[in-house]
Amino acid sequence: MARWHYEDFPEGEVVEYGDRPVSAEGIVEFARAYDPQPFHLDAEAALETQAGELIASGWHTVALTFRMSFDAFIADSASQGAPGIDEIQWLKPVRPGDRLRVRRTTLAARVSGSRPHLGIVQFRFETLNQDGEIAMRQTNSVYVARRSVGEV
Amino acid sequence: MARWHYEDFPEGEVVEYGDRPVSAEGIVEFARAYDPQPFHLDAEAALETQAGELIASGWHTVALTFRMSFDAFIADSASQGAPGIDEIQWLKPVRPGDRLRVRRTTLAARVSGSRPHLGIVQFRFETLNQDGEIAMRQTNSVYVARRSVGEV
Repeated sequence: MARWHYEDFPEGEVVEYGDRPVSAEGIVEFARAYDPQPFHLDAEAALETQAGELIASGWHTVALTFRMSFDAFIADSASQGAPGIDEIQWLKPVRPGDRLRVRRTTLAARVSGSRPHLGIVQFRFETLNQDGEIAMRQTNSVYVARRSVGEV
Repeated sequence: MARWHYEDFPEGEVVEYGDRPVSAEGIVEFARAYDPQPFHLDAEAALETQAGELIASGWHTVALTFRMSFDAFIADSASQGAPGIDEIQWLKPVRPGDRLRVRRTTLAARVSGSRPHLGIVQFRFETLNQDGEIAMRQTNSVYVARRSVGEV
């Protein structure tokens, strides 16, 4: 039985979770597979680029953010998945040695009209570095099953 | 010297590129790191889930799409990066054995008011499977340097 249902994500709630160290090796491994721009691949080569230093692919930051959310609540939730993403903004570079965490805000929550056993929860996820700067902001809705009557 | 500049992405242009096979191993490897939901990790475990089969993480599809775009034009472009993503929609599951390609449409293109050496190009990326179904749709703008006078 999932621990977190629709009712556990009230509108306006703000929670923080995660403590994810970012390594140069992790940055480079992701970049080799999916985003091999020089400033994601090699610290020396990055000096010659607009970035000026090795930074994580924006998609890597998104993937790390999802993993933190998975570990914090999705794994133990009645989530039925997300149809898409409303918006992503990359605001600050993510660098080797950074420690990331996530601030999740419930922007809206309502019961689905067509599928009344489901709720639709709109979250804003802000990925913060160790200095409290927002590196990435993402907004999206998730379908989450409602807690059945009598369910704990 | 980059091959593709702002002028090479005229509004309304539609191009297709990529031919990326998706393997079960690739799906599972991405999922282990970033999205370890059972229907992304194991074909047998997936039978018991809402997905009913092994499917790729939506973030994996996004990352593969970016890689196809990188190989097709970003690597050899005067791209100055993307500030974010306007929208992502996941429309069809991506399965082991699929072959993905990308249809890129230039939705809008204009010169930056504040930085007139740059253009702002808004693209729609549609990730198609071998049956021509749209698995994923993404819209975002990219800064691209204008071709200097006299530059080839």
